[in-house]
Amino acid sequence: MFLDKLLASCRQNQSLLCIGLDPDPALAPLELVGRADWAARFGQGIVEATADLVCAYKPNLAFYEALGTAGWQALGATLAAIPRHIPVIADAKCGDVGHSARAYARALFDTLNVDAATVNPYLGFDSLEPFLAYRDRGILVLCRTSNPGGADFQDLPCRLDGQEMPLFEAVARRAVQWNRAGNVGLVVGATYPTEVAAVRGIAPDLPLLIPGIGAQAGDLASAVRAGVDRQGERVLIAVSRQVLYASRGTDWAAAARAAALALRDAINQVRELQR
Amino acid sequence: MFLDKLLASCRQNQSLLCIGLDPDPALAPLELVGRADWAARFGQGIVEATADLVCAYKPNLAFYEALGTAGWQALGATLAAIPRHIPVIADAKCGDVGHSARAYARALFDTLNVDAATVNPYLGFDSLEPFLAYRDRGILVLCRTSNPGGADFQDLPCRLDGQEMPLFEAVARRAVQWNRAGNVGLVVGATYPTEVAAVRGIAPDLPLLIPGIGAQAGDLASAVRAGVDRQGERVLIAVSRQVLYASRGTDWAAAARAAALALRDAINQVRELQR
Repeated sequence: MFLDKLLASCRQNQSLLCIGLDPDPALAPLELVGRADWAARFGQGIVEATADLVCAYKPNLAFYEALGTAGWQALGATLAAIPRHIPVIADAKCGDVGHSARAYARALFDTLNVDAATVNPYLGFDSLEPFLAYRDRGILVLCRTSNPGGADFQDLPCRLDGQEMPLFEAVARRAVQWNRAGNVGLVVGATYPTEVAAVRGIAPDLPLLIPGIGAQAGDLASAVRAGVDRQGERVLIAVSRQVLYASRGTDWAAAARAAALALRDAINQVRELQR
Repeated sequence: MFLDKLLASCRQNQSLLCIGLDPDPALAPLELVGRADWAARFGQGIVEATADLVCAYKPNLAFYEALGTAGWQALGATLAAIPRHIPVIADAKCGDVGHSARAYARALFDTLNVDAATVNPYLGFDSLEPFLAYRDRGILVLCRTSNPGGADFQDLPCRLDGQEMPLFEAVARRAVQWNRAGNVGLVVGATYPTEVAAVRGIAPDLPLLIPGIGAQAGDLASAVRAGVDRQGERVLIAVSRQVLYASRGTDWAAAARAAALALRDAINQVRELQR
């Protein structure tokens, strides 16, 4: 079960930090620049430096796809370096139906063998069904995204079951109904702590993936406070660049570790204060 | 310009038929089964048999991705076989932001060099901006999809600019506003002719990509009537399996041609009757 694995790794590493793996050639450590296998080496180095500090890793498939064939090899090498007890979330933002959705589900859950995937809700339940059918894996449904344009549709007032609410709350309500196997979570941007709190109210038991800290400038403390459940858990604070690219010098792995440690501890401090 | 190229190919081939390229190993012609290059040969064969009968081709990237490295080679070989005056729409259903969205736009418009791409609107305007920036290419925004689950959110009553309307109509209205460069279209399923008509009313000038005929059982005539503009144009009736897999025997290319011809003529008959 994805959720059990997530809660276990959160507790073992005392961490709600989820490192987003976004290999960007323009920001890579200088000693790796120009190497054909730089993304593989970079991913392995980041994982080795941080595996005792995170609750999960979240490879962003768009970044790997952008690297072509070498990207897929880098992804495979990076996934192989992640200890088996740490869950991996493929940030794939899948949104398709029928045969295509089934093909994506197979590619992610059978071939790549990740623990969870992000999915887009616009196409509705039957676009998520092929993923939900893997009851031991998780889906994290995009709900209120951290980009400014997220408001364009996600904040529109909608009527669901006779009540008016913004669209993202309607998505959260449906996600709760679709959570029969305990394998559904939601994605809510840290930049919108009020929305994070609203989603937590609708979905008290669902894991919330919260991106938008750091490079995207969300406020860490308010996002953690708004997102955690009553036990101070079921939140993944997703950070990418702030950790990955903490240094471009030869100390890049150590600098990434230091950044991850500081984030993990800052998150835990907020949890402590809230008890 | 995508729209100019589309209108020109519609007129030259007297066709609103868009063949969806969904290479499925389970349905492939028997003489190609087991060949490493089957999807390339199949795509080339379909294109050669139908290039004078279509207004566009729509490769579904999920099917090519599912074939791994061979899939990308097959896609390249298939695209190379398409005459330059026929527009190609990458059915990619992109829905991401920032660096990822830019990477997808580059991959589709620079590397693959397709004329248009399908995109998911849930993440809002800034997720579409990197695509819109290619003013000579098109984006086709998922609006009312042809799957049953499309109703889950797309049909929710929403308030936009003080008016109540289903979410898909709100998407259509925003798409019209985002069409400053004349490079936006919409995707509306043939299974919902009333919704097709509503979208055409909101967006009199936008091209409408209409899937869901045939294997997905939408009614051809009602979709064409509801979708065409006042000149009987700006509609792409997307059909995949009914053409691609018309026969598994050695006559597969001829059978695909016959199916495409019948569809093109059936569509044109509806247009004639409407004049």
